[in-house]
Amino acid sequence: MGSPRTALVFASLACSVDGYISSTSGDTAWLNDTMRRDEDYGLAETMSRTGAYVLGASTYRESAAMLGSGKAGPPTYVLTHADPADAPPGATFMSGDVREVITAARAATGKDVFVFGGGDVVTQSIAAGALDELTIAVVPVILGGGTRLVGELEEAARLRLADCRSFESGIVLLRYLATSGAG
Amino acid sequence: MGSPRTALVFASLACSVDGYISSTSGDTAWLNDTMRRDEDYGLAETMSRTGAYVLGASTYRESAAMLGSGKAGPPTYVLTHADPADAPPGATFMSGDVREVITAARAATGKDVFVFGGGDVVTQSIAAGALDELTIAVVPVILGGGTRLVGELEEAARLRLADCRSFESGIVLLRYLATSGAG
Repeated sequence: MGSPRTALVFASLACSVDGYISSTSGDTAWLNDTMRRDEDYGLAETMSRTGAYVLGASTYRESAAMLGSGKAGPPTYVLTHADPADAPPGATFMSGDVREVITAARAATGKDVFVFGGGDVVTQSIAAGALDELTIAVVPVILGGGTRLVGELEEAARLRLADCRSFESGIVLLRYLATSGAG
Repeated sequence: MGSPRTALVFASLACSVDGYISSTSGDTAWLNDTMRRDEDYGLAETMSRTGAYVLGASTYRESAAMLGSGKAGPPTYVLTHADPADAPPGATFMSGDVREVITAARAATGKDVFVFGGGDVVTQSIAAGALDELTIAVVPVILGGGTRLVGELEEAARLRLADCRSFESGIVLLRYLATSGAG
């Protein structure tokens, strides 16, 4: 209390009970029909704590507009093989290791770094031991296929449960912290 | 309250945050090292409510001894292509649809039916709309591979969250009910 906490590298994802972040068809009704406007999943808090984004190339393409890249939004660091010179204002294109991208993002802000989007970049961050916090909104549906929350890892990663909250909608927010040093 | 409730068909599984019920190597330390003797995950209640088991063939081979088949344990119904005449006392071998096996198990008891073991038989029960209740113990670890909690489904299955409890160990018990008629 009182002392400034260390900035965290975090990811926040909605997923099905069986661990998928999107359905095979790409249909999002399972998520959108479940979420309720009167339930606070912490989105405003997430936005306010975010000082920089780290994105994979495909998430960047899909969400550049939403993140307001180039305008007033936090700086965005994209893990991509695209030419760095092609990056729009507010975005930085970097190839190579996700650790380097996260290090660049951390250096750009005193606030937290949001590893945004599903699958690859989150998996790489976990594999690199670079993710401090993982929040999952477990949606009460079994999808039985789709994009996995986390891809293949060579080593299991143990976590520490920091928070568990359930909502009337049946959504359960689980917040985990890494058990070993990260970043 | 007071009126007897309808017997339920249920499954209860431990799984990782990313939705695996066993690791690629088969190592169980991720689960055994996390569970604590002083935490009540409802095992005793599960045993006392179980009037019959429904198992897949592989789970039966692995767990026949544990379930005490042939002795005082509840009757066991096994979905298998093995010869029905080879079934030991207390076990019934049935081929065909998981629904028929569940129907036979229900007929044998006024208590609940435990669809036991991972993967296939649970997936088939969900696909058939025959599972009334699914309890998951979410263990605070990311396995990044292994046996999936639920296999492929043609249709997503919406659930209703009935209970959510977290423990000091970081294990979170999520109890879901089917949203449509089952059994």
